[in-house]
Amino acid sequence: MDAQNCLKILREIKDVAFATVNDEGKLEVRIIDVMIVEEDKLYFCTGRGKDFYRQLMKHPDVAVTGLNKEFQMVRLSGKAEKLTDQKHWIDRIFEENPVMNGVYPGESRYILEPFCIESGELEFFDLGKSPIYRESFTFGHAEAPDEQEIHKEKDGSCALREKGFRITNGCIGCGKCMRNCPQQCITKGKPFVIHQEHCLHCGLCFENCPVQAIVRRGA
Amino acid sequence: MDAQNCLKILREIKDVAFATVNDEGKLEVRIIDVMIVEEDKLYFCTGRGKDFYRQLMKHPDVAVTGLNKEFQMVRLSGKAEKLTDQKHWIDRIFEENPVMNGVYPGESRYILEPFCIESGELEFFDLGKSPIYRESFTFGHAEAPDEQEIHKEKDGSCALREKGFRITNGCIGCGKCMRNCPQQCITKGKPFVIHQEHCLHCGLCFENCPVQAIVRRGA
Repeated sequence: MDAQNCLKILREIKDVAFATVNDEGKLEVRIIDVMIVEEDKLYFCTGRGKDFYRQLMKHPDVAVTGLNKEFQMVRLSGKAEKLTDQKHWIDRIFEENPVMNGVYPGESRYILEPFCIESGELEFFDLGKSPIYRESFTFGHAEAPDEQEIHKEKDGSCALREKGFRITNGCIGCGKCMRNCPQQCITKGKPFVIHQEHCLHCGLCFENCPVQAIVRRGA
Repeated sequence: MDAQNCLKILREIKDVAFATVNDEGKLEVRIIDVMIVEEDKLYFCTGRGKDFYRQLMKHPDVAVTGLNKEFQMVRLSGKAEKLTDQKHWIDRIFEENPVMNGVYPGESRYILEPFCIESGELEFFDLGKSPIYRESFTFGHAEAPDEQEIHKEKDGSCALREKGFRITNGCIGCGKCMRNCPQQCITKGKPFVIHQEHCLHCGLCFENCPVQAIVRRGA
């Protein structure tokens, strides 16, 4: 899995959830079509009369998610930027998604404005596999808000804002965490090791360690 | 359509998007299973170790959305409350959703906490019909933050926080709005009328009225 394939999954799902905040700071979420994905950029559009449009113009930071039929979930967070070449992009979007002509026939399509997310963070979470599998990426020019938040994985990839738990040197090797893990993603060692790519982040090991040797990552 | 059927649609979709805010005030959204819907209440659960759990405990106001195969979208906003009788509800959830045993086998299920949304606002948006159809509801004990925000529809139902546009008495009857509407949801009259239940809120009539007789509702 990589960022490009995560974006492709969102395009295949097509109807994904976009979360925004409104003027009162209240959360909103609705289904929006992913219209084009190319060169690691995600394109969508919305009507200038819609609340969603006004929210994007005021608070362009959005969170996006979708789940495909194989139970692979992709989560994206990034900034949605309005594109200046409206006619070009709306025409491209209608070319790639002819079903749009049923909703916005003829010239009415130009009430829509095109938006692009060209950088951000992505999380891939495969619930169709046992054990589950997860991985995080950045795409575009996204940079971690704080250098310390970047964690270099053993395979060289970068995972942002570490989530979940890790076992510290306080581990006494009793094996309680390993026996209790619902995904069996903990293996023996000094200390024992949580295999992060298969971890649900459920917290069962953390709560049950008899010597509190398990701590939150990134805390 | 009514609130009860909107909640049923969310249960049928099952994998819906839940938006929350994290400690830094940043938006997050992920797919969560709707585990039970009964008596106009929606139940779900999550692990005590997860970021989602911590966000719910700190900021219980959530926004939820899903789309079914008939292109009917339901949007919900409400408060998620943790249930006190954990064992009872987690056992019920696993009874109704036996697939959960594959992810949390045996006793590991009790790392999950049950949550309930028992009041809030709902929006139904049917994109599978032409013209599109929309309707809003409240459910449970939800009350509008401000009495003035309640709009009594002709059929007696209550729609919260009016969206979209309306045509004022400034209308000169030129018919430009009616001709341009992508959903043909405007009819003649003095003034002309936007049929709100079929309106996309795209803003095309609003932008093109030669005498600015069309205004935002609820503004």
